[in-house]
Amino acid sequence: MKMNSSLTQVGCVFCIAIALTSSVAWAATPDDEALLKQAQAMFKLLPKDMGTAEFPVTPERVALGRLLFFDPRISLDGTVSCSKCHQPYLYGTDALAKPIGVKDRQNPRNAPTVLNAALQLAAHWRGDRVNVEDQATKALIGPPSFGQPNFEAAMAKIKAIPTYPELFRKAFPADKDPITPENWGKAIGAFERTLVTPSPFDAYLAGNIQAMTPAARAGLKQFIDTGCTACHSGVGVGGGMYQKFGMVEDYWKETHSQVIDKGRSDVTNNPADLYLFKVPSLRNVAMTPPYFHDGSVATLPEAVHAMGKVQLGKDLSKQDVEAIAAFLGSLTGRLPKYYETVPELPAAAFLP
Amino acid sequence: MKMNSSLTQVGCVFCIAIALTSSVAWAATPDDEALLKQAQAMFKLLPKDMGTAEFPVTPERVALGRLLFFDPRISLDGTVSCSKCHQPYLYGTDALAKPIGVKDRQNPRNAPTVLNAALQLAAHWRGDRVNVEDQATKALIGPPSFGQPNFEAAMAKIKAIPTYPELFRKAFPADKDPITPENWGKAIGAFERTLVTPSPFDAYLAGNIQAMTPAARAGLKQFIDTGCTACHSGVGVGGGMYQKFGMVEDYWKETHSQVIDKGRSDVTNNPADLYLFKVPSLRNVAMTPPYFHDGSVATLPEAVHAMGKVQLGKDLSKQDVEAIAAFLGSLTGRLPKYYETVPELPAAAFLP
Repeated sequence: MKMNSSLTQVGCVFCIAIALTSSVAWAATPDDEALLKQAQAMFKLLPKDMGTAEFPVTPERVALGRLLFFDPRISLDGTVSCSKCHQPYLYGTDALAKPIGVKDRQNPRNAPTVLNAALQLAAHWRGDRVNVEDQATKALIGPPSFGQPNFEAAMAKIKAIPTYPELFRKAFPADKDPITPENWGKAIGAFERTLVTPSPFDAYLAGNIQAMTPAARAGLKQFIDTGCTACHSGVGVGGGMYQKFGMVEDYWKETHSQVIDKGRSDVTNNPADLYLFKVPSLRNVAMTPPYFHDGSVATLPEAVHAMGKVQLGKDLSKQDVEAIAAFLGSLTGRLPKYYETVPELPAAAFLP
Repeated sequence: MKMNSSLTQVGCVFCIAIALTSSVAWAATPDDEALLKQAQAMFKLLPKDMGTAEFPVTPERVALGRLLFFDPRISLDGTVSCSKCHQPYLYGTDALAKPIGVKDRQNPRNAPTVLNAALQLAAHWRGDRVNVEDQATKALIGPPSFGQPNFEAAMAKIKAIPTYPELFRKAFPADKDPITPENWGKAIGAFERTLVTPSPFDAYLAGNIQAMTPAARAGLKQFIDTGCTACHSGVGVGGGMYQKFGMVEDYWKETHSQVIDKGRSDVTNNPADLYLFKVPSLRNVAMTPPYFHDGSVATLPEAVHAMGKVQLGKDLSKQDVEAIAAFLGSLTGRLPKYYETVPELPAAAFLP
């Protein structure tokens, strides 16, 4: 809105800059055009939102879900909300290796960002949550998350806060008793499905080659040529499949992980899934350290180098790592308006 | 800003409403005018900000302080920021009786809102912090707050996060080594000194009688006539003095407090200060349950009734309590723009 009013008054500084750049006779080389075509075949622009027929993004659900997302009062001790581990000012993360929930209990794996999360094939690193709705619902009774002993205790907290019952009725008008764990998940999911962050890379994919810097474009080429796109492709630049972490050598040799996590095999009991994890989306990756399922690596260059080693058997040079990191920086989008701006929650207190 | 752009396009709905109300020939009665005069003698409009010569609200300090306020990474375990106990969506509180800091440690007293907090004569319920700057600085080493063993550990965390050193240099250009506990307090204090929330009561004090509903105006009269203004007056509607909690009868008979807190006498070692607490500002009180130094009372009507009993020896009727609560509701302002909107923190991770 601020930008809109500036536009009206003095014109868009960004547009003027683009116009100036164009006027100095920049022309895409055949290599630029070829790289763009290659990228367009591998990646996809972000959608406007991530709603589906099953999980629609209705205004009523989004408004309710946005309140619930920020409300700590539903947790066992009133200290944990979704936003505790998914803080807007930390790009939907908590900057910790492993999140801390109620009663100082540590979660077993790193908290990925909620931004663009609904694009992924499943939730959680091992895919043991079907989607963002399932994740939000089960978090209520997760001992190191909201910590409630059962769903009833959580629903009782919701019912005791003024305006929530009415907002649930409006969001789920067909339901006789709309305050349910599933609808909690659907409302929060509807909010999360609005959290898309279009980035310079999306402007590039849409055809504006100069939306990415020459360094970022060189990094994109390096990213493709190195083989990263075997897994990190599609709309999320990842998030579309499971893969073994440590294709070439054991991952912990590079990450120096303290605990050896067996990954998806502990969920499926299938030995073929040993060390399989969800390939994370790389959108906003520059803003969401630390890295990997256990948050064992602090910086992006270290993470890129480790991936080259354990997945592709390549000892990437400092220059190659920097190029790829420059590309990854172009995946940083702006925080969505309804995440950067926080809602006012209805007043209520729970005494111990 | 949203409002500004609507104004341009369709005119201000609020102004139209005022104009319509005026056009139905509303005229202030002599009683209305007398009440306004009485109120203007007892209370004061909020200032634009709460900066002082000693603690100026410079853009550089506010920008830095706003980042620091939301950053959990400076705490012992990376989980506690100022915003943990002073959440924007809960009107600068955490809705808990007593806040929980690092390692699940409970604070001894309720967390008051940061909104308009710098107006008060001191910080903390017992006045054992000189001002908001002192509070912010000492929170770094408060065991149930940020929990750092010493200031050096906290400063080391700040220095390790990109852009903070530069922002400290800009905010404190005269300092050779600007990253100090005192400057942490001054930067956060500068941000907090912008957090003023003009309310319908301020519009009323400025002369617009109809900015408050008739019920709220009746409540104001009740508030004055009951004697609440003996302590709750001035710009903060409180916050200007210490008073004994329990002037007429022991406070815990009404609050049912589990622990008998001796208040300021534990700080001053002066028996005359037994059960003295800072009179809290009532601005935004309807949005900040639970109430009192120990958060022992859950709702505003209960709190009003308890105050009548223990401070004034009056058993206020349900009607009187509701009237006073209606007045207190008119002290709710809008969240300040730089509190409702959150900043993007510089990316960095600390591994355990």
